[in-house]
Amino acid sequence: MVSFASDYIAGAHPRILERLMETNMEPLSGYGSDKYCESASEKIKKACNCPDADVYFIAGGTQTNQIVISTMLENFQGVVSAVTGHVSAHEAGAIEYTGHKVLTVPGYEGKMKAEDLMKLIKTFYGDENHEHMVFPGMTYISYPTEYGTIYSKKELEDIYAVCREYDIPLFIDGARLGYALASSQCDITLSELAALCDVFYIGGTKVGALCGEAVVFTHGNAPKHFINQIKQHGALLAKGRLLGIQFDTLFTDDLYMNISKHAIDMAEKLIDIFKNKGYEFFLDSPTNQQFIILDNDKMEELGKKVTFGFWEAYSESKTVVRFATSWSTSEEDLKYLESII
Amino acid sequence: MVSFASDYIAGAHPRILERLMETNMEPLSGYGSDKYCESASEKIKKACNCPDADVYFIAGGTQTNQIVISTMLENFQGVVSAVTGHVSAHEAGAIEYTGHKVLTVPGYEGKMKAEDLMKLIKTFYGDENHEHMVFPGMTYISYPTEYGTIYSKKELEDIYAVCREYDIPLFIDGARLGYALASSQCDITLSELAALCDVFYIGGTKVGALCGEAVVFTHGNAPKHFINQIKQHGALLAKGRLLGIQFDTLFTDDLYMNISKHAIDMAEKLIDIFKNKGYEFFLDSPTNQQFIILDNDKMEELGKKVTFGFWEAYSESKTVVRFATSWSTSEEDLKYLESII
Amino acid sequence: MVSFASDYIAGAHPRILERLMETNMEPLSGYGSDKYCESASEKIKKACNCPDADVYFIAGGTQTNQIVISTMLENFQGVVSAVTGHVSAHEAGAIEYTGHKVLTVPGYEGKMKAEDLMKLIKTFYGDENHEHMVFPGMTYISYPTEYGTIYSKKELEDIYAVCREYDIPLFIDGARLGYALASSQCDITLSELAALCDVFYIGGTKVGALCGEAVVFTHGNAPKHFINQIKQHGALLAKGRLLGIQFDTLFTDDLYMNISKHAIDMAEKLIDIFKNKGYEFFLDSPTNQQFIILDNDKMEELGKKVTFGFWEAYSESKTVVRFATSWSTSEEDLKYLESII
Amino acid sequence: MVSFASDYIAGAHPRILERLMETNMEPLSGYGSDKYCESASEKIKKACNCPDADVYFIAGGTQTNQIVISTMLENFQGVVSAVTGHVSAHEAGAIEYTGHKVLTVPGYEGKMKAEDLMKLIKTFYGDENHEHMVFPGMTYISYPTEYGTIYSKKELEDIYAVCREYDIPLFIDGARLGYALASSQCDITLSELAALCDVFYIGGTKVGALCGEAVVFTHGNAPKHFINQIKQHGALLAKGRLLGIQFDTLFTDDLYMNISKHAIDMAEKLIDIFKNKGYEFFLDSPTNQQFIILDNDKMEELGKKVTFGFWEAYSESKTVVRFATSWSTSEEDLKYLESII
Repeated sequence: MVSFASDYIAGAHPRILERLMETNMEPLSGYGSDKYCESASEKIKKACNCPDADVYFIAGGTQTNQIVISTMLENFQGVVSAVTGHVSAHEAGAIEYTGHKVLTVPGYEGKMKAEDLMKLIKTFYGDENHEHMVFPGMTYISYPTEYGTIYSKKELEDIYAVCREYDIPLFIDGARLGYALASSQCDITLSELAALCDVFYIGGTKVGALCGEAVVFTHGNAPKHFINQIKQHGALLAKGRLLGIQFDTLFTDDLYMNISKHAIDMAEKLIDIFKNKGYEFFLDSPTNQQFIILDNDKMEELGKKVTFGFWEAYSESKTVVRFATSWSTSEEDLKYLESII
Repeated sequence: MVSFASDYIAGAHPRILERLMETNMEPLSGYGSDKYCESASEKIKKACNCPDADVYFIAGGTQTNQIVISTMLENFQGVVSAVTGHVSAHEAGAIEYTGHKVLTVPGYEGKMKAEDLMKLIKTFYGDENHEHMVFPGMTYISYPTEYGTIYSKKELEDIYAVCREYDIPLFIDGARLGYALASSQCDITLSELAALCDVFYIGGTKVGALCGEAVVFTHGNAPKHFINQIKQHGALLAKGRLLGIQFDTLFTDDLYMNISKHAIDMAEKLIDIFKNKGYEFFLDSPTNQQFIILDNDKMEELGKKVTFGFWEAYSESKTVVRFATSWSTSEEDLKYLESII
Repeated sequence: MVSFASDYIAGAHPRILERLMETNMEPLSGYGSDKYCESASEKIKKACNCPDADVYFIAGGTQTNQIVISTMLENFQGVVSAVTGHVSAHEAGAIEYTGHKVLTVPGYEGKMKAEDLMKLIKTFYGDENHEHMVFPGMTYISYPTEYGTIYSKKELEDIYAVCREYDIPLFIDGARLGYALASSQCDITLSELAALCDVFYIGGTKVGALCGEAVVFTHGNAPKHFINQIKQHGALLAKGRLLGIQFDTLFTDDLYMNISKHAIDMAEKLIDIFKNKGYEFFLDSPTNQQFIILDNDKMEELGKKVTFGFWEAYSESKTVVRFATSWSTSEEDLKYLESII
Repeated sequence: MVSFASDYIAGAHPRILERLMETNMEPLSGYGSDKYCESASEKIKKACNCPDADVYFIAGGTQTNQIVISTMLENFQGVVSAVTGHVSAHEAGAIEYTGHKVLTVPGYEGKMKAEDLMKLIKTFYGDENHEHMVFPGMTYISYPTEYGTIYSKKELEDIYAVCREYDIPLFIDGARLGYALASSQCDITLSELAALCDVFYIGGTKVGALCGEAVVFTHGNAPKHFINQIKQHGALLAKGRLLGIQFDTLFTDDLYMNISKHAIDMAEKLIDIFKNKGYEFFLDSPTNQQFIILDNDKMEELGKKVTFGFWEAYSESKTVVRFATSWSTSEEDLKYLESII
């Protein structure tokens, strides 16, 4: 069945599989010390215009969030997130599992506001009893957010300004980073984003890889013995090449951005298709995730012909569903969609 | 350079890459709920003769050890391991990171003895102060061990008898399981092994997969909400298909055992080559890891022509090194080795 | 300076110190195994009308919350609390430190509503992705709340009904339990409260003891090897007698309730004093904590003559402050207060 | 029954109870911010000759070990202890509970050797795979040890030299510190000890207090926001005065050392009594804990007349038992002991 269920419904971009084939029999050292990890790291640093960055590869997004947050926070600190942030809502308590609280600020279509962040921090330090509270020690945002929205450059600058004022790092979850950067509404480049945070990751799993995320500590600020800490979290792959080769491929000949651009093109067409048929959108998303409000009857009917994601109940009789495009979405998929809705 | 550095120097067995190619564009559901995970699980249950087993796929070995141990132990329990066991010595404290102590018994060429296990448990319960100590709550052994040795059926039965007497589960780390089962010294089958423990895993990473281990809870005894707990540990891959397809392939047409048998054949030839040239072995390993004692001069000289692993210092002037074979070791590799040593 | 800063400004009720003196030279066994712990436990079970209860003594409130919650929850569960609950806001992340998330529902003058609890649980189980979320595994309420308010019997019954429907335990934090039970607005007894939850604790520190809380698992439902788990948390006092003797004294001749009644009498007089002078209350508290809204100038002036607690900013020019009474508050203290405000 | 079961069988030294009485009604601020904590801290810094030290009070020994170790270690580090060290053997896994491994070196009558510590560290850094292992990040010794033995100044200097060479802190568990310093075999003073480590604690619970240990970070090296971290561990007493008043009393008029000296005098007499009767000692302890080897028959017979501690089985027919003296041991106790053995 044609599927818009998510951006991880297919395997990997064919170029990635080809490279895995081509390199398959080369004997390489393990645990990320191979030449492909090295090469991918160099290409990423160049693409980010961060010559002093530290780049590491980790298999999945929740794992990356868990490791980055728990290794950068001090014992007594928590991470600030929008209440709708992935680390707050949908990671099965992976952050708390490492002993740290997720401190929340309101989410506005998935985004936090710099002023809410500032207020949380000021309230904390203004409280005489703050030694009995959790210190805000890092800010986490996702880009694009869980609702497909993206921060403007100005919004990012404002958030980062608060972080710098209070000397806490800003961490950007880029599980779908390419789909934000390729959006027509995006007003920053990859290197501008890298300059506006202390650490971020470039999502591979949802942007054409079999698995893998590339963590970039933008100014040589990786936690001490980070490989050891990845190992301690159980997350160090013996065949680190699997991640290195994939990211080396994604950052060759602009594959990462080309893939992302394709998904956005498909998303724009998908929006038109739904709009032309008079469907109601839950919010305006400029990226590859689109949220449509369906009557429950309609939802059931459509569900027999195409796969999409349940998002949340909208009312007694209506539901918000998600249609996602990705590198693997085809024109044929869209034509089929148009024919059935 | 020809390499015997480890059993994870190459990519995946070509049949696995082919299957990844063939299935690449099929839209599949995420997080291990796809048909390939289902199929692989069924094939593994059949191969193990465990119709009631619960099978899960996890990306790496340390991760698997960490998750299985921390989810099966109660808060107040620790896991008993030989002092040389992987969880005790070489996982960067991944078990302790989850809050549990690794309790150790002596290792004899990597193996624990049932009598030492019994003694540890009896001493614990015999101590008036045992409420101030860590309860032994699970037994961990690796098969083959970190030194390539394997337990006899009798030894396994004895260890499992102690576990059952005290009602603690036995967990077998099978990161290199195929290489044990394929050894001429092995006197058990996969299904016999499954009958002699409560949970074990079938290693993929070191036996031909890109990554992945298949955990088998032998009698329907998976921890509650295990998928949620894998997620909490950050270890749930969005594209679960990556693991499902690989294990489905490994358990089709006996690929897993054929791969393993090849590695053992190569290991036996490697042993002959070293023996014929008068090299000294650190111990007799019947599996794919061979430990040779080299003069340091010799080690340095050989290291320029072939890659192998440093294991441990043997004396001031000698070192134990490891030569490992795997599914990817070729007759040519061995001929080259023979020509240079 | 006369102080209404908190209910822990003085040492212990004199009768407690006397008993510590009288028993001081008796050789007793350690770690809570002494006869005074035993006797206190029996008296508490009788007072609660819970013959099958398990009673343990722990030095402080945060410690008690941390240990009870972390030992009763399964790995994959979190505890539900009002957002203003002590475990959520003012324990420096002590719950998250043990690996568990605090799931929050709104607080209404410190109290949660059964319907909000129900909604959170239903939303959780109704979400298709709940395997990626934290399971609600326990409900935590404080009685009285952090704002001095108390649940009616009906409200408690409704909350407990939700808990039983979903088979999750209800835990009542009774750090100031006596002050609730002694309140004229309270419509339940100690034994009725014990029948409406699975575990609660009777606060000693804030009700006349030097330190100590008595945890009551109401129906023999203490976590396995609870002493061991207390030890693992570092919280097992060698001289368990210190807690046993204090609680044995508090539960002899109704001392606990008499102390509490005195504090409530003093609170009622304090309310009258402030009301007669036209002061504005932040909310109506029927227990020993009273929250007054002061102009900042007034606050500064008063602060030179009497000690009270800063609570929170009310506006640019006004602040909410807390005046607390306790067993140690005297008529003289109140007269002095009346004279200066 | 007369008891030599431990050094925590009685309440507190009478002078401590008197001071608790005298100060009982003074209103004081909470959480260790009161004047008695301040005064006790000043007296301790003076006694240790450490003007820059940070002093904190924590209720119990295991708690102190847990907090000091977990807050001083980095995530990827473990603590090195003799295998017989309290943190390794008898704290119910309290260190591992915080996520850190206890790395062990041999114990010689409870003591570690500097050369074994050096060897462990060198082996670690010499191992090519040390990124897969736990970093030694702190050294823990107890003084006196769990076997009553004490390190000579030279031994301490040697251990501390290794620590400084590798830049890892030395932590001395002084649960029974007074009994070591008062021993005739002790060749250092309190201030010399303070100069030979980075952090240590002065045990109160076993040296005359109801509870409490004073942690001394010898050169202003307390972990950041240490009060917050104590709270996070659930260990911050609301009535911090309870600890402050006790330590203020113990460090007034040399009470701590006088108490300790008395216990050592009693121990020396106890040794004579057993020696004169021909009893066999398990080892020579120069402090307040004495280990005697008893025939099991004799043990049972004696156990009906006097209380002592079971230590460990010596052989099929013999057992090692512990007789401990303390500040509360009297000449009458000893006379009675002499009359029955």
